[in-house]
Amino acid sequence: MTQQLVAGIDIGGTNTVFGLVDSTGNIVLKKSVPTEHFLLPDDLVAAISEHIEKYFLEFSKNYELAGVGIGAPNGNYFKGTIELAANLKWKGIIPLAKLFSDRLKCKVILTNDANAAAIGEMLFGGAKGMKDFIFITLGTGLGSGIVVNGEVVYGHDSFAGELGHIIMFPDGRQCGCGRKGCLETYCSATAIKRTYSDLLLPSDAKTDIAGKIPDAKYIYDKAVSGDKNAIEAFNYTGDILGLALANSVAYTSPQTIFLFGGLALAGDFIFKPTIESFEKNLLNIYKNKIKILPSQLSENDAAILGAASLLWKGMC
Amino acid sequence: MTQQLVAGIDIGGTNTVFGLVDSTGNIVLKKSVPTEHFLLPDDLVAAISEHIEKYFLEFSKNYELAGVGIGAPNGNYFKGTIELAANLKWKGIIPLAKLFSDRLKCKVILTNDANAAAIGEMLFGGAKGMKDFIFITLGTGLGSGIVVNGEVVYGHDSFAGELGHIIMFPDGRQCGCGRKGCLETYCSATAIKRTYSDLLLPSDAKTDIAGKIPDAKYIYDKAVSGDKNAIEAFNYTGDILGLALANSVAYTSPQTIFLFGGLALAGDFIFKPTIESFEKNLLNIYKNKIKILPSQLSENDAAILGAASLLWKGMC
Repeated sequence: MTQQLVAGIDIGGTNTVFGLVDSTGNIVLKKSVPTEHFLLPDDLVAAISEHIEKYFLEFSKNYELAGVGIGAPNGNYFKGTIELAANLKWKGIIPLAKLFSDRLKCKVILTNDANAAAIGEMLFGGAKGMKDFIFITLGTGLGSGIVVNGEVVYGHDSFAGELGHIIMFPDGRQCGCGRKGCLETYCSATAIKRTYSDLLLPSDAKTDIAGKIPDAKYIYDKAVSGDKNAIEAFNYTGDILGLALANSVAYTSPQTIFLFGGLALAGDFIFKPTIESFEKNLLNIYKNKIKILPSQLSENDAAILGAASLLWKGMC
Repeated sequence: MTQQLVAGIDIGGTNTVFGLVDSTGNIVLKKSVPTEHFLLPDDLVAAISEHIEKYFLEFSKNYELAGVGIGAPNGNYFKGTIELAANLKWKGIIPLAKLFSDRLKCKVILTNDANAAAIGEMLFGGAKGMKDFIFITLGTGLGSGIVVNGEVVYGHDSFAGELGHIIMFPDGRQCGCGRKGCLETYCSATAIKRTYSDLLLPSDAKTDIAGKIPDAKYIYDKAVSGDKNAIEAFNYTGDILGLALANSVAYTSPQTIFLFGGLALAGDFIFKPTIESFEKNLLNIYKNKIKILPSQLSENDAAILGAASLLWKGMC
């Protein structure tokens, strides 16, 4: 009997990773190509499709392609398009789902990367059996996928779940979106570099220390070694994240909130202050019944598993 | 042919209103009883049921009771209970849906009043045909019902949609919930009295002017007459409400946000500053495509229509 496989593709600003995934979340093929080398989206589609077709030619007796799932920045689930993504070279509206379905002659589902990862968590991670949860990625920015009654919330235009751009402080830090005080300017791997550098220097210092800090892991290592500023940077980040998550509960009352990505790997340094602030700021009716947990998806596989789960969710 | 009617019951701290509603939203019976006169919930159930039974005895040939919908403070949709409602005399957990179904031998659905009103808006008001919207009541507090993909968001415990208790300013105004800075301490009929009195006096004044202002209508009348403080009070309220609603869009990306209740009756005085602040604070991808509109339910009928719509939604 032939076994069905789903292609999971994650379009990133730097690299596009893709793979073939079976119904249990086992990745049987995994590849990466540099996104920016492809001048046109059609070229990327051709390159990925060739890899996939080659695999099926080789193992055609055992496997068949059941569909393609794509996680992409500014991915529109309803239209299958990437729309005006700031971190991709391709401009305008890219009908990526159609390009893949024309080439590979199968069903293609596309959404943004955080929504895909949320479904990945539901099928292959810590949210198995959960109907109401929120998935947060703490990477370059803060991404989110909201699941209500077993389904991702897309909203009327497919762009629901942009918690990174909740305005926490109306006159706060400048955000890349053009506004001020967005959550992701305080709570992301990028943001903690800024917080840490602000602690090293008066905030009006003109030297860009944040730009010289290699990554959030550097601050984590400092914290492990007992550096007070590093620990304070995590506390400050967790304090704001906990408040934002407490407010989020008032929207969809999730059972669990999952944290994923660079910052979430800092363990107690980030979870402890986040949970303390969360419980302190929760409305009484929600207290002591909502968990904040690390994602159970591995950093390396989450993007592919998430994208593939877009298809598997409807088939399992 | 007998026509089906649904009983809609709205449990309030002061009065309980109830009525019989047909599938088009026509109210054929409408009554009110003082909630606090009933020492036990069973007594209220008996009194309301008698009214309903009497109506059907009189008109039995024409009508039959298709079910009962109840809007209630702290109403738990999953359990059919009222749980620890601060503004009701009955303590603990009240199995109100079961009490009614035991007595009237029909299907009973219970949820909180704002959720019920949101469904009322969808069936009988301005949200006909809409799948994604948010319904906000600006009364004594700020209540909300969130609709995603045609269904009210209940969350894992049925207590989703408490936007009145989003913390806007961590060290802000004291809220009745015990925390500080909740949205409803700035944006509600009660809150604008406080804002107006703060504008009349320095904020540290000990005289409770807010307590002497009869209602939000008083401030509205002042604004109509050109009173600068009254107009400023509406602007201040709208400024914060607009920011909160812009943040709300990042959760569920609604097509429309409906405002209902005392404050929403102030027309441009509240809608203009709210919409200005809303558009200013929206993330780019959401700008100029989401409407903020007054509810199309009448103040007098909304509670009964909302409650009845809980049943009609599943039957229409």
